[in-house]
Amino acid sequence: MTPETPSALPSAARTVFFVSDGTGITAETFGHSVLTQFELRFRQIRLPFIDTLDKAHDAARKINEAFARDGQRPIIFSTLVKTDLSSVIRKSSGLHMDLIQTFVAPLEQELGVKSTHTIGRSHNIVDSEEYKNRIEAINYSLAHDDGQSHKNLSSADVILVGVSRSGKTPTSLYLAMQYGIKAANYPLIPDDFEREKLPSALNEFKAKIFGLSITPERLSEIRNERRAGSKYAAIENCRYEVNEAEKMMKREGIRWLSSTTKSIEEISTTILQEIKPNRREY
Amino acid sequence: MTPETPSALPSAARTVFFVSDGTGITAETFGHSVLTQFELRFRQIRLPFIDTLDKAHDAARKINEAFARDGQRPIIFSTLVKTDLSSVIRKSSGLHMDLIQTFVAPLEQELGVKSTHTIGRSHNIVDSEEYKNRIEAINYSLAHDDGQSHKNLSSADVILVGVSRSGKTPTSLYLAMQYGIKAANYPLIPDDFEREKLPSALNEFKAKIFGLSITPERLSEIRNERRAGSKYAAIENCRYEVNEAEKMMKREGIRWLSSTTKSIEEISTTILQEIKPNRREY
Repeated sequence: MTPETPSALPSAARTVFFVSDGTGITAETFGHSVLTQFELRFRQIRLPFIDTLDKAHDAARKINEAFARDGQRPIIFSTLVKTDLSSVIRKSSGLHMDLIQTFVAPLEQELGVKSTHTIGRSHNIVDSEEYKNRIEAINYSLAHDDGQSHKNLSSADVILVGVSRSGKTPTSLYLAMQYGIKAANYPLIPDDFEREKLPSALNEFKAKIFGLSITPERLSEIRNERRAGSKYAAIENCRYEVNEAEKMMKREGIRWLSSTTKSIEEISTTILQEIKPNRREY
Repeated sequence: MTPETPSALPSAARTVFFVSDGTGITAETFGHSVLTQFELRFRQIRLPFIDTLDKAHDAARKINEAFARDGQRPIIFSTLVKTDLSSVIRKSSGLHMDLIQTFVAPLEQELGVKSTHTIGRSHNIVDSEEYKNRIEAINYSLAHDDGQSHKNLSSADVILVGVSRSGKTPTSLYLAMQYGIKAANYPLIPDDFEREKLPSALNEFKAKIFGLSITPERLSEIRNERRAGSKYAAIENCRYEVNEAEKMMKREGIRWLSSTTKSIEEISTTILQEIKPNRREY
């Protein structure tokens, strides 16, 4: 799944369908993972909420149309749990990757119970404790973004610290949204560096503090997008702030990583491994 | 994956491992989807960043230990792309669901090319256009939360409207984080209902406005968690606001849905189907 370069494309892009009786997010996430193993470009179409025979026939028609248009078999990643629906898709002209049935059959045998074939269980969970935790965590992380509130820091699962624009806000929101982790974040600012001390509100919570750093060059680039030519964005200032922040984190014994080349998914996974919030096992 | 109820648990909970050379998010998302098809409880452990032989042997050891402890084979969902690493896991005592190899082999045949077996391509994408769009969208959605800014509404892909606490903020953030969709959100307030008009800043953007509604009962419940006993949370006031908001959306020809029983994933999927932002095909 690299950007289109003529030499890498021996033929026109294949069409890929993600077919689901729910949102299609699982089929798409998984399909992406597999397709990134190929240096090809794909045309991707999600067909969510395919939960009736009529809709399944409609989806099969779209797949057949893509075959007629492309002259190549479309690839289908499907997570349909009802066998009558998935057999409609199987009869289409695409290469059918049935994500559920492939793994449900061996699991049924291993577990000694039948699967329920219930539609939409994976993202239709509004009444569950887990879903409520996620929404509560999003609200918490928003209210505790950028040191906005000192209140209830004791309820935080994680407190991120780092210089302004080191990636704290998107990481906090990802932790909340994906895992229901209450993630506060707190900027380290020149005042803290002069005092050579962590913001005092954080002193009692060291066990759940995690630091983000970044290279001064990348930081300056990001800050210049916001405030071009400012002292705030100048490379010398960025060097000073990053250096002081890293010194402080070492002095205080705070675990940290450099966010420069890491995605919010990778940063969040590392934080969970290090901080080990109570509610999950890693 | 229902909550533990003694009668539904013929034996102790199985241990499930999600093993990945990257974050493990794909393995976990997919594994959850499959496991929700079983009315059983599972003990879940994620083993991310398994990218060397040493770490693979360490993972295999943990799997074997779980087998010894539980007296039942652990279940493994793995997305290791290097065959030398995945064969270490295959030799462990767990039931090995190899998500990559199962589908990569038929895809190689269909596509006529070999897969790259490159580790960590799916969430190690910091330099990609897609990743930058996501981070930019998160920043945009935060800056345009709750009608905070009228600036650059023309850059929004989607503008959500609805009464206070109808689910606009988490939905906006999910759209941004998952899809790189710039989602502004704008509250509908009693002033708008008295004027019987949309906030004027929104008039020129009707094609990308989507409404969220909610039952008055659920709204009152949510508002009472924030401000117990207030007029704002009272059921009569919630009835009035929801009724007026729905009348306004109908009058203005705005598409909307009720968020009451829907997750942010389901709401977002529906919005994408309806609004069809340029950058994606649905």
